[in-house]
Amino acid sequence: MAKIKVGILGATGNVGQRFIQVLNNHPWFEISALAASERSAGKMYADVADWKVGTEIPDSVAGIEVVPIDPKNIDADIVFSALPADLALTIEPAFAKEGFVVASNASSFRMEEDIPLVIPEVNPEHLGLIDVQKKNRKWDGCIITNPNCSTIMMSVTLKPLLQFGLQSVQVATMQAISGAGYNGIYAMSIYDNVVPFIGGEEEKIETESLKIFGKFDGKKVVNNTDFKVSASCNRVPVIDGHTEAIWAGLKSNPKPDAVKEAFLKFDPGLSHLPTEPKYPIIVRDEKDRPQPRLDRDMGKGMSVSVGRIREGVGGVRYMALGHNTIRGAAGASVLNAELMHKKGYL
Amino acid sequence: MAKIKVGILGATGNVGQRFIQVLNNHPWFEISALAASERSAGKMYADVADWKVGTEIPDSVAGIEVVPIDPKNIDADIVFSALPADLALTIEPAFAKEGFVVASNASSFRMEEDIPLVIPEVNPEHLGLIDVQKKNRKWDGCIITNPNCSTIMMSVTLKPLLQFGLQSVQVATMQAISGAGYNGIYAMSIYDNVVPFIGGEEEKIETESLKIFGKFDGKKVVNNTDFKVSASCNRVPVIDGHTEAIWAGLKSNPKPDAVKEAFLKFDPGLSHLPTEPKYPIIVRDEKDRPQPRLDRDMGKGMSVSVGRIREGVGGVRYMALGHNTIRGAAGASVLNAELMHKKGYL
Amino acid sequence: MAKIKVGILGATGNVGQRFIQVLNNHPWFEISALAASERSAGKMYADVADWKVGTEIPDSVAGIEVVPIDPKNIDADIVFSALPADLALTIEPAFAKEGFVVASNASSFRMEEDIPLVIPEVNPEHLGLIDVQKKNRKWDGCIITNPNCSTIMMSVTLKPLLQFGLQSVQVATMQAISGAGYNGIYAMSIYDNVVPFIGGEEEKIETESLKIFGKFDGKKVVNNTDFKVSASCNRVPVIDGHTEAIWAGLKSNPKPDAVKEAFLKFDPGLSHLPTEPKYPIIVRDEKDRPQPRLDRDMGKGMSVSVGRIREGVGGVRYMALGHNTIRGAAGASVLNAELMHKKGYL
Amino acid sequence: MAKIKVGILGATGNVGQRFIQVLNNHPWFEISALAASERSAGKMYADVADWKVGTEIPDSVAGIEVVPIDPKNIDADIVFSALPADLALTIEPAFAKEGFVVASNASSFRMEEDIPLVIPEVNPEHLGLIDVQKKNRKWDGCIITNPNCSTIMMSVTLKPLLQFGLQSVQVATMQAISGAGYNGIYAMSIYDNVVPFIGGEEEKIETESLKIFGKFDGKKVVNNTDFKVSASCNRVPVIDGHTEAIWAGLKSNPKPDAVKEAFLKFDPGLSHLPTEPKYPIIVRDEKDRPQPRLDRDMGKGMSVSVGRIREGVGGVRYMALGHNTIRGAAGASVLNAELMHKKGYL
Repeated sequence: MAKIKVGILGATGNVGQRFIQVLNNHPWFEISALAASERSAGKMYADVADWKVGTEIPDSVAGIEVVPIDPKNIDADIVFSALPADLALTIEPAFAKEGFVVASNASSFRMEEDIPLVIPEVNPEHLGLIDVQKKNRKWDGCIITNPNCSTIMMSVTLKPLLQFGLQSVQVATMQAISGAGYNGIYAMSIYDNVVPFIGGEEEKIETESLKIFGKFDGKKVVNNTDFKVSASCNRVPVIDGHTEAIWAGLKSNPKPDAVKEAFLKFDPGLSHLPTEPKYPIIVRDEKDRPQPRLDRDMGKGMSVSVGRIREGVGGVRYMALGHNTIRGAAGASVLNAELMHKKGYL
Repeated sequence: MAKIKVGILGATGNVGQRFIQVLNNHPWFEISALAASERSAGKMYADVADWKVGTEIPDSVAGIEVVPIDPKNIDADIVFSALPADLALTIEPAFAKEGFVVASNASSFRMEEDIPLVIPEVNPEHLGLIDVQKKNRKWDGCIITNPNCSTIMMSVTLKPLLQFGLQSVQVATMQAISGAGYNGIYAMSIYDNVVPFIGGEEEKIETESLKIFGKFDGKKVVNNTDFKVSASCNRVPVIDGHTEAIWAGLKSNPKPDAVKEAFLKFDPGLSHLPTEPKYPIIVRDEKDRPQPRLDRDMGKGMSVSVGRIREGVGGVRYMALGHNTIRGAAGASVLNAELMHKKGYL
Repeated sequence: MAKIKVGILGATGNVGQRFIQVLNNHPWFEISALAASERSAGKMYADVADWKVGTEIPDSVAGIEVVPIDPKNIDADIVFSALPADLALTIEPAFAKEGFVVASNASSFRMEEDIPLVIPEVNPEHLGLIDVQKKNRKWDGCIITNPNCSTIMMSVTLKPLLQFGLQSVQVATMQAISGAGYNGIYAMSIYDNVVPFIGGEEEKIETESLKIFGKFDGKKVVNNTDFKVSASCNRVPVIDGHTEAIWAGLKSNPKPDAVKEAFLKFDPGLSHLPTEPKYPIIVRDEKDRPQPRLDRDMGKGMSVSVGRIREGVGGVRYMALGHNTIRGAAGASVLNAELMHKKGYL
Repeated sequence: MAKIKVGILGATGNVGQRFIQVLNNHPWFEISALAASERSAGKMYADVADWKVGTEIPDSVAGIEVVPIDPKNIDADIVFSALPADLALTIEPAFAKEGFVVASNASSFRMEEDIPLVIPEVNPEHLGLIDVQKKNRKWDGCIITNPNCSTIMMSVTLKPLLQFGLQSVQVATMQAISGAGYNGIYAMSIYDNVVPFIGGEEEKIETESLKIFGKFDGKKVVNNTDFKVSASCNRVPVIDGHTEAIWAGLKSNPKPDAVKEAFLKFDPGLSHLPTEPKYPIIVRDEKDRPQPRLDRDMGKGMSVSVGRIREGVGGVRYMALGHNTIRGAAGASVLNAELMHKKGYL
């Protein structure tokens, strides 16, 4: 069977490079277009991408000529968007209008009423918004978004806690520098240091999670009002991998062991998507795990690791960790596209 | 006026070196004895201390001959203890029995009913326990302790919040590697990493704080039962300076500005002790402060810096930061000794 | 064809873990025994190895029961030694006597007259020493060693320079912390720091390289006397990957471009061994490469990357870089065993 | 006696802040003007300087109104220039023309024939160029420059080696990130990494050193031709402090002990300038010193520390280290101004 052609918008940046890694040798998708700014367009990808994500640049993309970010340059069914929010605001609708499925990691449309904000393991049923969206906007294509990186790690772990009656979440994050992009943070700012602020991050965690856990009523998503989220976001000197200290207030106040059991039993029921990890949640029993350098690559960067499950304040405390540019960005968008394909939306 | 002679027990280690820094040119105290393990005894301090705290080793101590840790070797009125907890357990009582005031940074006796656990800015009235202790134990001297480093930073900032009806505290710490001592953490364990566990730390924060904020009834300290503390402790790749993300549940649910005002107005009423900083709490208005590398040395390492005061969950969220081996260790013990001197306990 | 059974001595440590990674899915070898100290013996590998090399522990070894380091416990033809030098001194001969091929990363026997010190790309003909060794020592098996990590990176790049008349080498190293083993360096020692000393390292580089480039005359290796090596070794805050600044004095004083050409054309003539990288030397044209975080994993950690080839002092200056625990340790030993197999020594 | 008024050009940046630190409580100089870009002009220094050099911003400068970088705004006799090279090119001559002594850390004029490039401990007699310069250029004021940071550390240590017949220098540097300014290096570029390239640095070291050690013949400086310098410059993850591995070829091939003796005896004969450290060169006997985090602040950041003096290649090998933004920048300029004052040039 012929593979589905996919393009990457913003292919040269940090998340763009991660898209290429995640899509390399993909069983369903093949990269047919790499789009980037005018500055890079017309040149070979290997010559313009300052490739910095560890492994070697795949031969299959090294020689692709980068094209400008314009629907008419791109022969693909799906485009993955690694665009900055301001550019995504106009470019993504232009692609959707022209019939592309836009699987976006940008924040621009996440909170729009008719745009699904999806984590396949958490709220796959929100895909239903796509029909609403197409009708509303008279688009041939559509936009589907994944949440902010920190929100994803947290939400995957909250899903199996719903059964205990989730009432409140407090989360202190320790986020990796790659989350700000390659040129996002100066070395003098973060070395031997912690920066207790990430612009817009706390708001994203607090609002996106309520939509993700909201109910799709056939027409729109009604935000969850059962619980509130309060976040305190910090940047720490770590290359990749966001670590989160979470307090979950739980109505039934389960023992930590019951929560551990819920994590272990969690099965999102996706019947295996290609980028889905064997274990969506890995439970570490060691007293000092998860740790970003040791656990960020678990499940090819798609598993969320948890540990230190212990009593909290009317609930439990635990640590959660995931790879911010894979599970929290490129991998999240690809997983969304895989879900759409499986559910017949392509 | 002649200065009061002081000795340092465990003078060669990381906290021992910080004691020397804090006591250098002290207006009331002068170092008369440096005590360390048998291995170092009999040698010049400069030859056995692997001095690593940045500034040069003061000339006045470089040539002092290190003595064994034994009361009969030490000519001093006060001894500052930078001993590990297991050694402190037997050594500190031996000194107290022999008439020394032992101002200890060790955890061994902090929770003993008749041993004061004091932060001068928070609970100076707990000094009253000293009379109880002397009577109980029939000691000529006494032991006074300061809390664990993370507890100190947090408690200093909680004091001015009492007026709002403190009901709960959740604190996620990001602690510096110096807190584990020079040989406490391997480079491979913490570089490009976060370790979400510090042995005993969460328990110390959760129990010590209730004693500190307890009421001294003339005979003992009755632990505070108005609030509970829940801690999540992490080690991050920072040399010095513990950073804390705090949620304080406050009955009167004040606006963040009112809390800021309370921090700014906080006056511990100590009428200036030599090691007391000009500002016990420094309020940073920048959106991304306090930061350990930039703020740990404020007030010669004795100020606690706070910032990002914002709405929490039935109260406020904010960041707190202090120098773990000065404000959180050596400086804390010296400040306690100064308080005792001022209050006539020496 | 049945695979050759191999054991790993010292399987739980940092280099032991790298051996497992390199041998995972090996076309010729299969791991049949994991040996470690008495403390670990009798337990499942996954339970005793504190696995910290990034990827997940292979399923095929996780459940292997660790055995004590004793020839009679081990069913294998080859044993790879990741033992510390002091233990290797008695254990490796015991295995060689019992008929095992011991491919060792330890330094204990590298400079022995009848023990080959081999880098397959540099001096494969030194394998001839094995016959001498067996005869001398009346062993059924033998010991083959690979050089110290820093020596390997340097020597691979010096080989193609021999044609220009190598007269002198000055090398300043910037070595990764993993080179000292997991527990080798305290975080407080190396963070925000450089340590300009690594015990024994300069001597190893200076003596091992002369043996490697020596001539095997059928009976012994006569050390090379054409050139001298002077090393200055430093530890820097990098997890993996040794970087070296090299000055090579060259008799014919070639232009940098001729040296680049020699690097590019370098073909060790091994006709492909499984662990041999596609390119033994990768030449980077960027002005600021090679860099350890970006280049250490090239060729699955087995390529040496060079760059900044420019005029030196009567020769050239350049940078060289390789993965210290793969190219410089586990991978080096495995490559030696592969060479032996190909040359009919097994 | 009234203090001499001094201004700082480029007062808000990293080196500008170091100038303020070095000049704080200076016995001869007082800061009368802080000049910076138009963006900062008209505002209070404390409001525009993003103060990040550790200690608190001195009260005496916090409230100074920043002025534009224009001679007519500045009431001072000396201006210290922390300007970037491109701006310095036009601004520094404008100040010199208007009668200011410009003590510059910029590279723009270092190699100009009539501009002195001075390290007081090395070539104070080059001050004689000032008269030549004033005559040539018909300036009332003048420009005096200090070398590049890496050049300074190296040159201070080479001075006492001249007696042994210096013939060649090879230097591999490991330079701190602060050397590139606050915004000079991205965290993703240098964390867990070494960058083996610093633009223009090797050329500066190689050319500036020959001028510094040149002979002032009354009219000009004739570059030294006795030796050549070959540099290999690297950026490492260190906040402050440049470390250098040096090979010095010495005609008389002295024993390392003789070289150590020469370092210890080195007396620049300046009869004490205020910023001059007690020891221009500190010799460390420990096997693993100097180290940047431990030694950069020696002599208030103005001493150069050396260690590991051992045999080289026809000479000696040793390590040298100094604080790049104090000894290598702001402190160097201030020391030059002090020398000028002492020699009657003000």
